[in-house]
Amino acid sequence: MANGKLPTRAEDFSEWYNQVVLQAELADYAPVRGCMVVRPYGWALWENITSILDKRFKETGHVNAAFPTLIPLSFFEKEKEHVEGFSPQLAVVTHGGGEQLEEPLAVRPTSETIIGYMYAKWIKSWRDLPVLIVQWGSVMRWELRTKLFLRTAEFYWHEGHTAHATAEEAKEEMLRILDIYTDFSINEAALPVLKGYKSESERFAGAQITTSIEGMMQDKRALQCGTSHYFGQNFSRAFDIKFLDRNNTLQYCETTSWAISTRIIGAIIMTHGDDQGLILPPRLAPIQVVIVPIFKNDAEKGRVMETAHRLFAELKGAGIRVKLDDREEVTPGYKFNDWELRGVPLRIEIGPNDADRNVVTLARRDRPGREGKSSVPQAALPPTVSGLLDEIQRSLLERATAFLNANIHQPGDYEELKSIVADGWAFAWWCESPECEAKIKEDTKATSRNIPFDQSGEGRCVVCGRPAKVRAYFARAY
Amino acid sequence: MANGKLPTRAEDFSEWYNQVVLQAELADYAPVRGCMVVRPYGWALWENITSILDKRFKETGHVNAAFPTLIPLSFFEKEKEHVEGFSPQLAVVTHGGGEQLEEPLAVRPTSETIIGYMYAKWIKSWRDLPVLIVQWGSVMRWELRTKLFLRTAEFYWHEGHTAHATAEEAKEEMLRILDIYTDFSINEAALPVLKGYKSESERFAGAQITTSIEGMMQDKRALQCGTSHYFGQNFSRAFDIKFLDRNNTLQYCETTSWAISTRIIGAIIMTHGDDQGLILPPRLAPIQVVIVPIFKNDAEKGRVMETAHRLFAELKGAGIRVKLDDREEVTPGYKFNDWELRGVPLRIEIGPNDADRNVVTLARRDRPGREGKSSVPQAALPPTVSGLLDEIQRSLLERATAFLNANIHQPGDYEELKSIVADGWAFAWWCESPECEAKIKEDTKATSRNIPFDQSGEGRCVVCGRPAKVRAYFARAY
Repeated sequence: MANGKLPTRAEDFSEWYNQVVLQAELADYAPVRGCMVVRPYGWALWENITSILDKRFKETGHVNAAFPTLIPLSFFEKEKEHVEGFSPQLAVVTHGGGEQLEEPLAVRPTSETIIGYMYAKWIKSWRDLPVLIVQWGSVMRWELRTKLFLRTAEFYWHEGHTAHATAEEAKEEMLRILDIYTDFSINEAALPVLKGYKSESERFAGAQITTSIEGMMQDKRALQCGTSHYFGQNFSRAFDIKFLDRNNTLQYCETTSWAISTRIIGAIIMTHGDDQGLILPPRLAPIQVVIVPIFKNDAEKGRVMETAHRLFAELKGAGIRVKLDDREEVTPGYKFNDWELRGVPLRIEIGPNDADRNVVTLARRDRPGREGKSSVPQAALPPTVSGLLDEIQRSLLERATAFLNANIHQPGDYEELKSIVADGWAFAWWCESPECEAKIKEDTKATSRNIPFDQSGEGRCVVCGRPAKVRAYFARAY
Repeated sequence: MANGKLPTRAEDFSEWYNQVVLQAELADYAPVRGCMVVRPYGWALWENITSILDKRFKETGHVNAAFPTLIPLSFFEKEKEHVEGFSPQLAVVTHGGGEQLEEPLAVRPTSETIIGYMYAKWIKSWRDLPVLIVQWGSVMRWELRTKLFLRTAEFYWHEGHTAHATAEEAKEEMLRILDIYTDFSINEAALPVLKGYKSESERFAGAQITTSIEGMMQDKRALQCGTSHYFGQNFSRAFDIKFLDRNNTLQYCETTSWAISTRIIGAIIMTHGDDQGLILPPRLAPIQVVIVPIFKNDAEKGRVMETAHRLFAELKGAGIRVKLDDREEVTPGYKFNDWELRGVPLRIEIGPNDADRNVVTLARRDRPGREGKSSVPQAALPPTVSGLLDEIQRSLLERATAFLNANIHQPGDYEELKSIVADGWAFAWWCESPECEAKIKEDTKATSRNIPFDQSGEGRCVVCGRPAKVRAYFARAY
């Protein structure tokens, strides 16, 4: 229930975000440093995300499994870059059952190590490959500065871990998943993400190739929405994941890992929300349609509620996620605000005149005020509503895509890059040297987000002027 | 893949169990003391269990949410019995991000405390009640003697936590859930569990009433398959969970919690399995039907595989979970053993003669050998298979129920009780004193499992001879 006023996005985007998360009851601060509680409304949104992704993973041959939450500390030391990347962030169990442990255990920050250990035990022959396992759960990284959904000590995600016979197959897997992520983001979450590969300095600890999808928030900062990594033989050598190939020769496996986390909820909020609160894409919204009955006396109530219950049953029967808000202790105006804050894509108002005239009033969440309202016949309401939900879904994607395109610029020189990334993204020629990337970061706080796979032409590095074969996106990021 | 021979149940029931779990690839030992890895086949079984329960919880108004994995140690001290019950079992995080924590954090053994803390924050008024939240995840209890699925340091479960305005409503909730658990066990898992309430000494730490469902394994030991607790105001007073009632008076909430864990997979294995391995109830089996093609040469292969693919598509289209085992590096006989070990309820054999005569051979997993085989027409195979899966489901429940009934006895005196619980369950009059219960446990290792709600008549306590109003089940238990 709404319990306070939202600041506008223009006033304070960061605090607008925090208040939307709290007041819409998506999540709350936990009494454990840096952790969050994902409340039922937020979890229902996450379940809609997970069920779509889970289905796509299963359709492409993946299976789910569960590995321990605790990982021996020594496991992290087996892959040099991995331990450097993760050891500063570990939460460590030192005592169990009242006694000090012989070896401390880390609460998993990611599971390459323990899954690698098990793969070494399970994989014997080319016949056992590929292994395509996904784990759904949470991981823990001791973050110093936290923000609900975007960066919390514990967060929820899936982590896919696959082992293959050849580098080619592993790279194909990495890209297959990146395509699933891209398609999911665009067509289910209405997030017009850009896909590409990461620069060397932005790679996952231990990866040979890291690919990502990146989204633009309304404050024009970038948010990494998903990653897919190719490890080559880094982890298979560290954990001895070997198989006998068809010629009976022992070979190391090629492995990948990939993840989307509850961070993507932050992307949905910051891409679509407005000053009234959340706007959820219909395909993911826990409640797609809310019915608000309006009446002043018992006579009106009878007619209105009869209509409301009948239409509720029709919509529900058609598979639409609908809620009838029949609370009597609050006014219709209060309910309008409440469901707008929570981002329900479509509101159906039913007053006594609507009931008498066999119509209802529809109000689109994505178009506030009179512009988004229409009066439609009660007859055949489910197809009307379904069509409008599709239209809202399309419209959210179009709006976000237009915003993205309007805020990516190609700098002619380094000064221009600096002014672009102050309030947008730069798509700039780059020589791929870590030095030029580091200079941009130092001067502007903008990092290289990713590098598109399809490149054409050649240019001059926007920093050093040397020949450049690729253009990359540079932006300040969450 | 089968990689060793199973001992028979008669030879060594405990080792038979371990080998079934490992060889059927349900789970494996993890490289972390007392923890297990749930492998894809075991996790698929768990997903079928969770999806049915999740649907039933949602139909009865429950919602899911996620609370932190780590809980401040001080939270456990707020409820006296709770801390006594759980503190010896805690895994404790003392370091985070390279520094010692000011307050150690426990990896949750159960979440009453941290959920209670959040409920105190969220619940203000009678309008906020009831709160009906379920969390799916894992918990950690530092067990000394572990066994895959039955008792591991980390295990998977759901934990329901509800808050109500009145004791009556909270008790109704406890029983509503117990009924869901009972119905699920009997009608989905084919486990003929017995429901009742626990004795005082067997209650959950902090509960005023604990109810349970108890199953009988083939070695006649009892396994607790699910519990539902009523806390009264124990936790609401400890965590200050209060609400303003309709008269504007501040009241403490009445709370419940309840759980079914991956232990129930152990119950399924030990109730239904045979010397060939697992037998899964069709309603939960990840693979309900496996098709094994049989041929000797390419000419036969063409006819057989064409039939196999066609029937596979028909069965899949009818919503049956079917697998076509088209491996060529192993023999049909190997495949028979492999899928029997994994407990697939129904096998379809297709040889060249079957293909020519438009029939297939069906082999029931629950009736090994010729008795369970039949030749049926390929025409209308999906309804034939569906009907047979229903029949297998019924048959498994009947067999387990007959076994349960044949092994519960009513002792006339204490000596008889002692001989009964050596190889079965005693259903005995009991005065409800903890002393008599403790004596039984000391003399026989049998504990009181539960006490049925419906009791009739009166008797004399089987231990002390004093008047007794209830009969309870006594058995050695896992």
